[in-house]
Amino acid sequence: MRKLRYAMVGGGQGAFIGGVHRKAMALDGQMELVAGALSSSPDKALASGRELGLADDRNHACWQDLLDDELRRPTGERIDFVSIVTPNHMHYPVAKAFVDVGINVVCDKPLVHTSAQAQDLIEAAAKSGVVFAVTYNYTGYPLVRQARHMVRSGELGEIRKVIIEYNQGWLSTLLEGSGNKQADWRTDPARSGIAGCIGDIGSHAENLAATITGLEIDALCADLTTFVSGRKLDDDGNLLLRYTNGARGILISSQIEIGCENDLRIRIFGTQGSLTWQQENPNRLWHAPLDAPPRLFTRGSPWLCAEAIKATRLPAGHPEAFFEAFANIYAGAGEAIRARHERRSPAHLEADFPTLQDGARGVRFIEKTVESAHSTAKWTPF
Amino acid sequence: MRKLRYAMVGGGQGAFIGGVHRKAMALDGQMELVAGALSSSPDKALASGRELGLADDRNHACWQDLLDDELRRPTGERIDFVSIVTPNHMHYPVAKAFVDVGINVVCDKPLVHTSAQAQDLIEAAAKSGVVFAVTYNYTGYPLVRQARHMVRSGELGEIRKVIIEYNQGWLSTLLEGSGNKQADWRTDPARSGIAGCIGDIGSHAENLAATITGLEIDALCADLTTFVSGRKLDDDGNLLLRYTNGARGILISSQIEIGCENDLRIRIFGTQGSLTWQQENPNRLWHAPLDAPPRLFTRGSPWLCAEAIKATRLPAGHPEAFFEAFANIYAGAGEAIRARHERRSPAHLEADFPTLQDGARGVRFIEKTVESAHSTAKWTPF
Amino acid sequence: MRKLRYAMVGGGQGAFIGGVHRKAMALDGQMELVAGALSSSPDKALASGRELGLADDRNHACWQDLLDDELRRPTGERIDFVSIVTPNHMHYPVAKAFVDVGINVVCDKPLVHTSAQAQDLIEAAAKSGVVFAVTYNYTGYPLVRQARHMVRSGELGEIRKVIIEYNQGWLSTLLEGSGNKQADWRTDPARSGIAGCIGDIGSHAENLAATITGLEIDALCADLTTFVSGRKLDDDGNLLLRYTNGARGILISSQIEIGCENDLRIRIFGTQGSLTWQQENPNRLWHAPLDAPPRLFTRGSPWLCAEAIKATRLPAGHPEAFFEAFANIYAGAGEAIRARHERRSPAHLEADFPTLQDGARGVRFIEKTVESAHSTAKWTPF
Amino acid sequence: MRKLRYAMVGGGQGAFIGGVHRKAMALDGQMELVAGALSSSPDKALASGRELGLADDRNHACWQDLLDDELRRPTGERIDFVSIVTPNHMHYPVAKAFVDVGINVVCDKPLVHTSAQAQDLIEAAAKSGVVFAVTYNYTGYPLVRQARHMVRSGELGEIRKVIIEYNQGWLSTLLEGSGNKQADWRTDPARSGIAGCIGDIGSHAENLAATITGLEIDALCADLTTFVSGRKLDDDGNLLLRYTNGARGILISSQIEIGCENDLRIRIFGTQGSLTWQQENPNRLWHAPLDAPPRLFTRGSPWLCAEAIKATRLPAGHPEAFFEAFANIYAGAGEAIRARHERRSPAHLEADFPTLQDGARGVRFIEKTVESAHSTAKWTPF
Repeated sequence: MRKLRYAMVGGGQGAFIGGVHRKAMALDGQMELVAGALSSSPDKALASGRELGLADDRNHACWQDLLDDELRRPTGERIDFVSIVTPNHMHYPVAKAFVDVGINVVCDKPLVHTSAQAQDLIEAAAKSGVVFAVTYNYTGYPLVRQARHMVRSGELGEIRKVIIEYNQGWLSTLLEGSGNKQADWRTDPARSGIAGCIGDIGSHAENLAATITGLEIDALCADLTTFVSGRKLDDDGNLLLRYTNGARGILISSQIEIGCENDLRIRIFGTQGSLTWQQENPNRLWHAPLDAPPRLFTRGSPWLCAEAIKATRLPAGHPEAFFEAFANIYAGAGEAIRARHERRSPAHLEADFPTLQDGARGVRFIEKTVESAHSTAKWTPF
Repeated sequence: MRKLRYAMVGGGQGAFIGGVHRKAMALDGQMELVAGALSSSPDKALASGRELGLADDRNHACWQDLLDDELRRPTGERIDFVSIVTPNHMHYPVAKAFVDVGINVVCDKPLVHTSAQAQDLIEAAAKSGVVFAVTYNYTGYPLVRQARHMVRSGELGEIRKVIIEYNQGWLSTLLEGSGNKQADWRTDPARSGIAGCIGDIGSHAENLAATITGLEIDALCADLTTFVSGRKLDDDGNLLLRYTNGARGILISSQIEIGCENDLRIRIFGTQGSLTWQQENPNRLWHAPLDAPPRLFTRGSPWLCAEAIKATRLPAGHPEAFFEAFANIYAGAGEAIRARHERRSPAHLEADFPTLQDGARGVRFIEKTVESAHSTAKWTPF
Repeated sequence: MRKLRYAMVGGGQGAFIGGVHRKAMALDGQMELVAGALSSSPDKALASGRELGLADDRNHACWQDLLDDELRRPTGERIDFVSIVTPNHMHYPVAKAFVDVGINVVCDKPLVHTSAQAQDLIEAAAKSGVVFAVTYNYTGYPLVRQARHMVRSGELGEIRKVIIEYNQGWLSTLLEGSGNKQADWRTDPARSGIAGCIGDIGSHAENLAATITGLEIDALCADLTTFVSGRKLDDDGNLLLRYTNGARGILISSQIEIGCENDLRIRIFGTQGSLTWQQENPNRLWHAPLDAPPRLFTRGSPWLCAEAIKATRLPAGHPEAFFEAFANIYAGAGEAIRARHERRSPAHLEADFPTLQDGARGVRFIEKTVESAHSTAKWTPF
Repeated sequence: MRKLRYAMVGGGQGAFIGGVHRKAMALDGQMELVAGALSSSPDKALASGRELGLADDRNHACWQDLLDDELRRPTGERIDFVSIVTPNHMHYPVAKAFVDVGINVVCDKPLVHTSAQAQDLIEAAAKSGVVFAVTYNYTGYPLVRQARHMVRSGELGEIRKVIIEYNQGWLSTLLEGSGNKQADWRTDPARSGIAGCIGDIGSHAENLAATITGLEIDALCADLTTFVSGRKLDDDGNLLLRYTNGARGILISSQIEIGCENDLRIRIFGTQGSLTWQQENPNRLWHAPLDAPPRLFTRGSPWLCAEAIKATRLPAGHPEAFFEAFANIYAGAGEAIRARHERRSPAHLEADFPTLQDGARGVRFIEKTVESAHSTAKWTPF
C-alpha cells in the first residue's frame, strides 16, 4: 500500500500544532509530507520547508503557489490531500481553494469563522466530491469510541444529562504580547474569530459530547467572561444546555483555571447507567450501571467494541495518548481518501473521523454561544 | 466539664439523620440525650424514646409536651439545647417555639420553607439571645476549614471562579411510594418545600461555597428538571452564578446521576491559585499555586491552619469522615452554648458552626433558584 | 438494652490510643466508662480520671487497685469488661489478672511480648471463660469484611499471592527523646518488645492478611533494618512469605518512608481474580475478575455481603473511617460479652472481632520475623 | 539533517515489539527503515518486508544475507544502524556480527542469555567503536528522567529504600501453546533464557531502579515461582535487595497478578524525601519532601529539569505515553550515532539511552536471581 502524499499549509517554525499533525501522521508510516507552504511569512515558509526536507520545487512561499504547482503536476505526482494547520482565519480561504479543485482536505478546528463560510464549504465539497476531515482530535481516543458505542447502542438507556468540561489555566495571566505565539493568535479576534476560550477549547468540548451522544442542542444559555485585564476575547465560558430529547447539559470551558492543564472531561448520565472519561488519563473509562458496581474499562481490553480495538496500537497497560488519538483521525481520513481514489465505499470501521458537518456545527456553537452571552433571554435557540 | 443535656425532636425509628446526629454528639462524650419527642407519630415517638433509654418522664409523644415539660423543670435540670431533626416542614414551628422561650437550638437544614420564616427566627433569636446552629455538616470537615482559611487569608488571590457540584444518583428511579421513607418525604412538597434536589442537596452546595469563599451571589440562572416520571419536585438542577465581586460560578446538583453516591465537590480558582476538595475522600485538599507544582494537603498534617487542626481527632493517615465532621458542628455549637451559660464570649477558634444567617441565606437560595427556573430572563437578582 | 460498663487501664493524659478507644466505644452509645486506672503514674492516673468524669471511688491510682475494687463490688455494679490500652509491656500482667478473675478483656495489640505469655493467656481465658478481644482495628472496616467474604467464599479461586504493605514515614528522623511520647515508648525495647516497626505496624499487616485470606504462613524470610542512627529497634522490615497452600507473600512495613502517613494496603491475587484495598481510602475495594473489567465496591452498596452491611452505619458516599472501624471491633466484642452474660451463643454475624488466637499468632509473627532477620538461612519455618 | 537509515532484524508479521520500534522511530521523522531480515522464517521475512515497502534488494530472507549485503554497499548507502527485535536467543549472534563489522546496534532487552555473552559484546563494541543501545524503553519517560535528576542531585538525601514493582496478569492461565505467539516464546527456555517473568519484566524493573538511583546491588534474596501448571519458566518473582550504600530494596515482578496490565512502578525513599511513579499514568511524578506537603510534578511543567523537558514533545496536559518514551531512547541513540559519524562527542543532554553496561548488568541480575532462587542461603552476593 503506497503512502499517501500530503502538503501542509501552516505549521512552520515556532508553530505548535503543525508539528503535532506531522508526528501523528508519521506514527503509522502511511503518509508522507511532500509539499508545503508552511508559514504566512514567505521567508519563514521556505526555511521551514527546507528544515523538513522538502524538495525545493515543492517548498512554497505561499499557499497559492502551492496550489498552482500541484495543479500543474500530473495526477500520479500530485498530493493526495492538504493538511491545513494555520490560525483559524486562514482555514476558510485555503480550504475553499483546495476543495474547489477537488483536492482532499484535513483542516484544524474550529473550521471557519462563520456559519456562512461553513455552509459554503459543505456545498463546495459536495460538488467536488472531496474528502474533508476536521481534526477534532480528542474523538480519536479509543475509549471515546467505546463511549460512543455504548451510548449509541443503548447501554446507558435514554440520556438525561451531560457534563462536559474543558479546564485549562495557562491563560490566567496576560500571556499575549509577551512573545508567546500561541497566546498571541488565540486571543486576537482577527485570527481567532469572535470567541477566545469558547472557540479554542469550548468547541472541542461541544464536539466530544456530540460525537459520543449524538444528542442535538435545542437551546443554550451562556455566560462568557474575560477575566484577564487587557485581553480582547473571552477566557472563560459556562453554559447550560438543553437537548432536543429533553436531556440537560452543562458545558464548562476555561483558560484561567490555575492548576488545570488540558483537562477535558465528560460525564454522561442515562436512565440505565453513566460513563466518565478524562483526557489527561485517557486509557480509562468508567461505566456505572444502574444496579451493579461501577466498572473500569481500560484501553486494550478484549471486552471493548470493535471501533475501540481498531483504534488501538498497544496492549493494555502500555499507555497510548495524544499523538495516537490524533493519528487515528488521520488514519480515518486516509481510509476515506484511499476509498475515493479506488472509487469504492470506505470501510465503515476505518473511515472514522470528524466531518464538515461536525465542523459546521462547531462554528454554529460558537456563534450561538456568543449570541447567548449578549442576550438577556435565558435560552437562545440553537 | 459537665456534659450538655439535649432533647431531640424527630429522629425516631426508621429515621436516618437523627441517628447520625446522636452518634456525632456521642463521639466526643460532651453531650447526652436526656429528653425527646422522637416522632410525629405519638406511639412511635414513645417507643423510640424507650429504645434510646430515655426516662419515661422525659419521653414525650409530641414536641409541645416536651417543651411544656422542660419549662416546668428547674434550670439545673433543663436541657441545654434541642436538636431538631424532623422533615423540613416541622423545622419552623418547633424552632420558633424553643427560641421564643430561650432554649438553644440545633436544627437540620434547609432551615425553613420561606425567607419570611427565616427572618422571623432571626428576630426571635436576637430577642431571646439563644444560640442557634444549622447543621450544614459538610463545613465541619477539617480540610473545608483549611480551604476557608486559605481563601480568606488571600492565598488564592482574588477569586474568579467557583465550581460546586453535588452529584447523587439514588433517585434515578421512582423510589418514593415504594417504602423508602427518605425518598418519600424528600420528594413531597408538603414536607420538603418548594424544591426537591436543589433544596435537599443544592443548599449544601451553596453553603459550602459561601462558607469557604465568603462570596455573595449577585444573580443566578437556574435550570431545574424533574427527570423521573411521577415525581413531584425537581431531581436535577444546574445553575450559573454571578458573584458581587465579579466571580463566576457553576452549581451542579443532581439526584439522577447514576454512579454518584454523595459526591459533593468544590473547585475554587483565584488569581494566585486554586483549591479542589471532594467530600467522598475528605482527608485530601489540593492546592495548585500559580507558579509551582500542585501540592496535596492531608488532614492531620502539621502545616495546616489552627482551625483545621482544632477540628482533627486523629493523626494523618488515620482517616476521619462524615461523623467526625458532623461532630465538629456540634462541638462548635456546644462551645457557644457553654459560653452563653457562662456569660462569656465563645472562644473564636472553637465556636465554629453555621448560623441562622447561613440558614436564611440557604432558604433564599432555594427560593431564588426556583424563581429563576420559572423565569425567561437570564439573570434573577439575588 | 443497658449499656456495657467498662474500665480502662492506660489511656490517660498525653496518651493517644486510649482516647481513640473511648471515642470508638462512645459512637454507638452501647458502652460507658465507669472506672479506670488511666496511667502508670498515680497522679496522672487520678487527674485523667477526674477529667473524664469518673466517680472518685472508681478512679484509681493503679490497675491493681482498680481490680481489687471491682472484686469488692456486687455483680450488678461491676464492670462488664476492661479495656487495656497501655504500652505493650503492661498488656500481659494486666490482662492475666483480669482474665484470672473472670473479667472480660479488650486489649490493644500486639498482645504480649512472648509466645509463652500468649499461650498462658489462652489457657487462662479457656479456664475462666472470659471474652477476650484484641483490637486489630483495621479488620473492622466493612470492606475488609467484604474482602474476607469474597476470599473465603472462593470468588478469587485459589489464592496465589498476597502483597501487604504498611507504609509510614513519621519515624524517618530521631523523634524519640524529643518529647514525642508515642515515639518514645514505641522505640523502647523495654516497653515495645523485641521489635519496633515490625511489632507496631507489621503485626497489623500480618493480621489483616490472615483475617482476609485465612492462609497460614509456612515460612518467612525477613530483612529488618534500623535506618535512623541512635534508634534501638528496627524501623523498616521487609519479608518474603510462603504460605502452606503454596501461595507467596510479600510484607512491607516501614516507618521511614517519607510521604507515607498510615498507608496500610493489601492486594490478594487468586486464580480467578484479585482484590485491592487501602486503609487511607477505606470506602473502596477493587475487584478484578479473571475475564471481565475490574469493578469497584463501595461501602454501603446493596450488593455487599451481610458482614459488610452489618458493619456500616451510613449510606454509600457518606464516608466512614477509622473510628467507625474501631467501633465495629468493640461492637463485636460487646455482643460476645452480652451473650456470655445471657448464657447464650453470640450471634455469628455480630460477634466479629480478633481473638486471643489472632493475638498469639501476631506475637509469633514478631518472634519469627526477628529470628529470621538474624538468620543466614533463607527460610525460617513458622 | 538527513534521516538515519536503519535495518531491522525480527519484527515481521505476527510480532509485537518490532512494530512498536518502527512506530517509535517514525514519530520524530529522523529515521527510515531501508533494509530488513524481518523473521527467522525466510518466507515470512520476505513477505513482511514487502508489506513494509522495502526495496527487493534490501529485503532479506535471513540476517546473514542482510549483513553481507550491507557490507557490499558503499558507505553512503549503508545503514546507520541495525535494530534487533528478535526473541532473546537471537540477540547475541546478530548483535555480535554487526558490532564486529562496526555497524551500530540498537537491541531489545534482555540483552543476551549469559554474562559471558554480554562481556563479549562489551569487548567487541569497545574494539569496533560502535554505538550500542539497549531498549529499556521505560527509562525514556520524561518523568523517569526527572526522578533520576532529583535523586542524583541529592534532593532526596541519602537513599534508604527502593520498592520496585512490575505487576502483570496476562499469564495467569496457560496461554502458551494456544496460539499466542508472545506467550509462546516468552515462556520457552530455548528462546527466552533461564528466566521467564524475571527476565521479561523483572529486568525492566531492575533497570528502572538502577537508572534512577544509581545504587548498586550488593546482595539479593529471591523467591521465584511457577504458578501455572505446565509452564516451564517462573511466572512470579519476589526479591529482597541490599544495596552497597546500605539501602534496602524490594522487587516484585509477576505475570499472574490478575487485574494488573503493565503496572511498572517505583517508590524511592531517602532521608530528605521520596518519589513515586507509575508507568500506566506516566505523566505524573509525586515528590514528598520531609517537611512539606507532597507535590505533583506533571510532564511538560516549566519547573522540570532539562533532561525531562528535552524528552517532551507536547505541552502539559496533552498526555504522552509509551511510544514517545520509546522514541526518546531512539532519539538518544540517534544522537550518539550522528556524533560518531561526525567524529564528535555526543551532546550530553541528548545522547541519553541505556547502554551495553545496562544490558550486561541486567543479564547478571537475571543470573543472580535464578541462583538465589535455588539457594538455601538468604543472601546471594551480586
